[in-house]
Amino acid sequence: MSARLHAFYRIRASAATIEARAEGIANEQSVETPLAAIRDSFIMNEIAGKVEEIADEGNGWFRVRIGLAAATVGKDAGQLLNMLFGNSSLYEDVILEDAAFPPGFAALFGGPGHGLAGFRARLDAHGRALTASALKPQGLPVKQLAQLTYKLALGGIDVIKDDHGLADQAFSPFAERVKACAEAARKAVAATGKPVFYVPNCFGHFGEIEEQIALARAEGLSAVMIAPMITGVAALQAIRQRHQDFAIIAHPAMIGAGRISPYLFAKLFRLLGADAFVFPNPGGRFAYSSASCLKIAAALRGPCSGLLPGLPVPAGGMTLERVPELLDFYGRDVMLLIGGALLLAPPGKLAEETAAFVRAVRDHCYG
Amino acid sequence: MSARLHAFYRIRASAATIEARAEGIANEQSVETPLAAIRDSFIMNEIAGKVEEIADEGNGWFRVRIGLAAATVGKDAGQLLNMLFGNSSLYEDVILEDAAFPPGFAALFGGPGHGLAGFRARLDAHGRALTASALKPQGLPVKQLAQLTYKLALGGIDVIKDDHGLADQAFSPFAERVKACAEAARKAVAATGKPVFYVPNCFGHFGEIEEQIALARAEGLSAVMIAPMITGVAALQAIRQRHQDFAIIAHPAMIGAGRISPYLFAKLFRLLGADAFVFPNPGGRFAYSSASCLKIAAALRGPCSGLLPGLPVPAGGMTLERVPELLDFYGRDVMLLIGGALLLAPPGKLAEETAAFVRAVRDHCYG
Repeated sequence: MSARLHAFYRIRASAATIEARAEGIANEQSVETPLAAIRDSFIMNEIAGKVEEIADEGNGWFRVRIGLAAATVGKDAGQLLNMLFGNSSLYEDVILEDAAFPPGFAALFGGPGHGLAGFRARLDAHGRALTASALKPQGLPVKQLAQLTYKLALGGIDVIKDDHGLADQAFSPFAERVKACAEAARKAVAATGKPVFYVPNCFGHFGEIEEQIALARAEGLSAVMIAPMITGVAALQAIRQRHQDFAIIAHPAMIGAGRISPYLFAKLFRLLGADAFVFPNPGGRFAYSSASCLKIAAALRGPCSGLLPGLPVPAGGMTLERVPELLDFYGRDVMLLIGGALLLAPPGKLAEETAAFVRAVRDHCYG
Repeated sequence: MSARLHAFYRIRASAATIEARAEGIANEQSVETPLAAIRDSFIMNEIAGKVEEIADEGNGWFRVRIGLAAATVGKDAGQLLNMLFGNSSLYEDVILEDAAFPPGFAALFGGPGHGLAGFRARLDAHGRALTASALKPQGLPVKQLAQLTYKLALGGIDVIKDDHGLADQAFSPFAERVKACAEAARKAVAATGKPVFYVPNCFGHFGEIEEQIALARAEGLSAVMIAPMITGVAALQAIRQRHQDFAIIAHPAMIGAGRISPYLFAKLFRLLGADAFVFPNPGGRFAYSSASCLKIAAALRGPCSGLLPGLPVPAGGMTLERVPELLDFYGRDVMLLIGGALLLAPPGKLAEETAAFVRAVRDHCYG
């Protein structure tokens, strides 16, 4: 039999109906045709989805493993998502929990081009966690965003990213913003001697993203952020394949907590080429549990078909006070992102406050 | 104050916490920064999201209206989705239910270029509902997909679309498939004199979609299908803007039943330029209610800022027996899509079975 992906679903059903539900989803996620209408044994044997295992989890939920023909994916990231959950996302009682890939499948997409080690090498950041912040709020003019960039970089931070809400608005147009912030970052590097990444947020369709990367490249930048569930996952894949010198940070906007497990997104985004993934940390503004965040970190950093390890970026309502706790939790292979809490510092104190964050990360005793 | 979008959320909270939750979401979907860190009155007044109304729905759910600055959207469809639900999609207890646009906003995107009337005119289909079917299952070679196309067209159907699972797989590569199916459709038209749309499924990043449309255009085709939540909504917007002669059918893959209301997707996809939208019909394989489907149909066909009415395409497990009931339910401004149930006909009888479907729609007494 040809190679199969394995998709793992949680399905709410009764013991009497679960087999039919599982068969229904195997059909929905493959041939989407009544089996009686399939007259071709190749399609029945090689293409139709197969229910491989059903386990009763109790409380009316079942865990179901379905084998999907890898041949149905072709080489497109969007089609991968489509085969895993396209139509079944329409069922309110089905959750896509995990996916496992057959040998050779990961090589189709390639995974991170730089990953954790790439960030460390390019930022000369060894033996410690990395630090990051975000340019915000929306509405600030370009000049002030550039000043923020300068002060954060002066404080010694590793990565400064556009907030994911910065796109091409009239109050801070993309081209102007990227030019000014890149220049501010260069100016700070000239003063401190410490490398820093300024990371613009890319958006729109892939034709627009290509133009955005060209602007970033012209400014000497070498990393971008995208939200793959807004741009389409194929844009992530295409950046990975066409701009191999760029590191990619994936943002979780629109991944939606409820119906696809967050750690599967971490796994998929890494597979498709994300070097780093921003996700909500426990105790911040979002409700992810510690267990869920450890699974996300493992999906990014753990062994996976020979892919480079990626960089977990816990974020969302972090504060300086929590740095020691977070580093004990994640260890050193992590990038801590503190956005709004740094910006609470009075404008004249932002570089100092940033330096305090940087010191707390540098001086931590990693277990 | 500058123009505001209005986003409507359902939020699970207690009476004691709902105000803070609502304020939190207004912040999350706009400045994403502690208000104490915002020192600029323009941003506080014009850019930060505002809670406009909170209504207790009972059972621990509240309906909240939040005003978001239209200026934060710029002109990008992905950014529109990002501002409506990007980060808040990470909350399990928040549902995006509706959105309302300020005057002039719809003109930024344009809505359907052809819509219902365009389908009727190009297919010479007046005074009755339209009929559609899908090419499937995955795994069929190009030659057999072309035969299906020929027989469906011979039976007098209006629209034949690729199944949404057909992409660029080795068993039926896109370029070869589109050429063969377009040729089969032309051959049938030569025999019957009746126009038919063969509608290829587009996928991948927008650069790839541009190539797919070029192939379709070379074959004389003038409609394509995409799943905007897989390709990214910006791809839908870009097809609308760059290929104005093409009609666009939007597919619901990955819209996810639970967290964004389906009828908001219908409204958004129409806003962005979809001429038709496929959605699960009550009583088929998916769980949408009759009320939900009527709201979807209204979002597509009803008055909306001067946009052209779009074409509702209920689908998903339909059968010939249900045609009269469906036409009584939706009226004549609809396209019925029967896929797998037609394919249950023995290969030699497919054109006849299709003709029976076409007759049932033509001869119905519309109320």
